[in-house]
Amino acid sequence: MARVSQEHLDARRRQILDGAARCFARNGFHATSMQDVLAEVGLSAGAVYRYFRGKDELIAAIATEAFAGIRSAFEEASRATPPPTPDVLLGAVLRLFLEERIEGADRQAFARLIIQVWTETLRDEELAKTLAEGYNGMRAAWTDLVTAYRESGILSADVPADHVARTLIAVAQGFIAQQALFGDVAVEILEDGLRGLMSMTVDPV
Amino acid sequence: MARVSQEHLDARRRQILDGAARCFARNGFHATSMQDVLAEVGLSAGAVYRYFRGKDELIAAIATEAFAGIRSAFEEASRATPPPTPDVLLGAVLRLFLEERIEGADRQAFARLIIQVWTETLRDEELAKTLAEGYNGMRAAWTDLVTAYRESGILSADVPADHVARTLIAVAQGFIAQQALFGDVAVEILEDGLRGLMSMTVDPV
Repeated sequence: MARVSQEHLDARRRQILDGAARCFARNGFHATSMQDVLAEVGLSAGAVYRYFRGKDELIAAIATEAFAGIRSAFEEASRATPPPTPDVLLGAVLRLFLEERIEGADRQAFARLIIQVWTETLRDEELAKTLAEGYNGMRAAWTDLVTAYRESGILSADVPADHVARTLIAVAQGFIAQQALFGDVAVEILEDGLRGLMSMTVDPV
Repeated sequence: MARVSQEHLDARRRQILDGAARCFARNGFHATSMQDVLAEVGLSAGAVYRYFRGKDELIAAIATEAFAGIRSAFEEASRATPPPTPDVLLGAVLRLFLEERIEGADRQAFARLIIQVWTETLRDEELAKTLAEGYNGMRAAWTDLVTAYRESGILSADVPADHVARTLIAVAQGFIAQQALFGDVAVEILEDGLRGLMSMTVDPV
């Protein structure tokens, strides 16, 4: 009985978050009212406010969930030994997180939602904290991988692992920006691009 | 006489654009009114509206100028033969465009302004067009360079040059996102990161 009830609560929460994400992606955070969210999910104010007190809480929940999703896709994809190279890993994460979960037409809307979250952190300190935590988690995970690349002898440059980690996160962020701004960015583009970079000759300094 | 007058007009235009950029970076586009811009630049409405009819025109002018700046920094930095590798070139462009022109404290504000422009394109078609033109220009310039890398034998993977170009632009966009969100991203981080990637061994497929 209690379990059914929890499932019901979770499903309701899911329904609200998905509806809010659709509204935000379509019209932006600022142009979306709680009234719009209620209309989208077809629930009463009382039903929705039991879960989320307002737009800020909705945004924070969406961002936290997105990070958890990216993180688990990353962990799933990096489990192999030796770890997959960045082209393979970043490709797998983006496929797990974006392509398998989100329909083509909605992918640009989702990317637009992410860049709106970025902009929103400039005004919302709690959200900025959530984002910084997610970023630092990804940074630590990538840093471990880069160290593993070096230990396996497949990365030879004498540069801090953290700098490679941040550059790889930048690639993913830029991919999201391009997806949001121009749409239609296939994951192969990044995979090819990273392979191209990895195939370059570096001058010894 | 005419020349002095043109110089005066240009200086006035510059003053308005710089003031508007400061306002937007500080408070965001939506929270900034034309009244705020007038107060920031210390000019009358009549003086400002002679140059710009409203916030949209200011934003478009700032974005167009930023692209022109990035483009000329890119062209200046890529003039060498053989062309500088991506770590060197991207580092030089970011230094020319960001570090030499913008004080440390303002660099995060400027990056924030850029991600706000990204978000703003979702609502403003003219601005989206300006951004797409700038992006396509950068993409063509990087594609030429990647072709030159391949012809000089320093890039061996059989991947489309355009995909490497888009990945390198993604690195720059992600750098701007990190600068906006977390501040304090030194250009060396990207240079090191790209060198690290370039030093990796690619498995033959």
